[in-house]
Amino acid sequence: MRMGKVIGTLVATKKDEKLIGSKLMITQPLDASLNPKGDPIVAVDTVGAGIGELIIFATGTASRIAARKMDAPIDAAIVGIIDEINMDN
Amino acid sequence: MRMGKVIGTLVATKKDEKLIGSKLMITQPLDASLNPKGDPIVAVDTVGAGIGELIIFATGTASRIAARKMDAPIDAAIVGIIDEINMDN
Amino acid sequence: MRMGKVIGTLVATKKDEKLIGSKLMITQPLDASLNPKGDPIVAVDTVGAGIGELIIFATGTASRIAARKMDAPIDAAIVGIIDEINMDN
Amino acid sequence: MRMGKVIGTLVATKKDEKLIGSKLMITQPLDASLNPKGDPIVAVDTVGAGIGELIIFATGTASRIAARKMDAPIDAAIVGIIDEINMDN
Amino acid sequence: MRMGKVIGTLVATKKDEKLIGSKLMITQPLDASLNPKGDPIVAVDTVGAGIGELIIFATGTASRIAARKMDAPIDAAIVGIIDEINMDN
Repeated sequence: MRMGKVIGTLVATKKDEKLIGSKLMITQPLDASLNPKGDPIVAVDTVGAGIGELIIFATGTASRIAARKMDAPIDAAIVGIIDEINMDN
Repeated sequence: MRMGKVIGTLVATKKDEKLIGSKLMITQPLDASLNPKGDPIVAVDTVGAGIGELIIFATGTASRIAARKMDAPIDAAIVGIIDEINMDN
Repeated sequence: MRMGKVIGTLVATKKDEKLIGSKLMITQPLDASLNPKGDPIVAVDTVGAGIGELIIFATGTASRIAARKMDAPIDAAIVGIIDEINMDN
Repeated sequence: MRMGKVIGTLVATKKDEKLIGSKLMITQPLDASLNPKGDPIVAVDTVGAGIGELIIFATGTASRIAARKMDAPIDAAIVGIIDEINMDN
Repeated sequence: MRMGKVIGTLVATKKDEKLIGSKLMITQPLDASLNPKGDPIVAVDTVGAGIGELIIFATGTASRIAARKMDAPIDAAIVGIIDEINMDN
């Protein structure tokens, strides 16, 4: 998984029907200092994350597991909201 | 998924026969400011996307799910056309 | 797999229920000189790794195999603690 | 998939026996201007590509599908030869 | 697959038990000029590769296929030793 920050939402009316009902969140990956790093991911929210929250997201098969939609074309999902980080780098 | 812009199409007469009938779109990934970033992907269109449109694309198994072709050598597919982005980075 | 260093832990109260009981470790990938390189991964610990330890981590399906949780939204796991490196680059 | 150019071939006598009979092509990924970008991939040829040709290649499970060898340790394959590119970036 | 050079070995006493018996080789990916590029991978040797040898390695599911250990947390494996490269970039 990666740490990320939810920075937006996205609406796509014309989309794969298996994505209907999935909330698409624009998620910015973060570096070890929790600064933005790398390009934004469009992740399915599975935990009720809101804009501005720090989250962890998973990619690949793990994201379809998180969404409980193994037959949907999902490759990224938010799987947790970060409460606390204890870092020593 | 990633945000991208359809920047072209591609014709390959000599190709895996399982790709026949799939429209191959050259897709430029975008950064958080919706500027081009990273290298172009050749994605199968599954939603009727046109050149110049902002889309979301998925990679890996998710793309074969989108194409409804689990036995085709596809690793990227356009899964939605973006109508609206609400971003706050 | 990649070499990494455990640099922190992370608490997420609101998370996918399949992640309950998995210890989430913030892991910094390392380069050939064992210096930090690239962005931190949130990996499930499966070997009792502690902060500051050099470890190897796996991603993708391999991480769910390591966690013995094929139905959990895991895409990275610590699979070994490094005792000794013999390098000649 | 990605656009690439076949830049070489590779011989490995000592290799996984499931790779016997697969032609290994060194493939340079290309950017949107069709210039070399990123590091070379060793891809199994499945379409009769020759050195210097522009091709599309797939990675991961898609490459084993292309090679019709689901039990071979293949993670990249050439799946089409590019005839024509219409790009507008 | 990628071209790489074996630059070291690694010992991890405390590790996933499914990794017991697998030789872990530190492998440096190479660019088109066969110079080091990118960060080292820890790959399972499946072909008897030695330090300093040029090899090809596979990642993901392909690596578990190569290791003949589908239930081990492996995501990278050496699948061939390079005898000859014919490159024209």
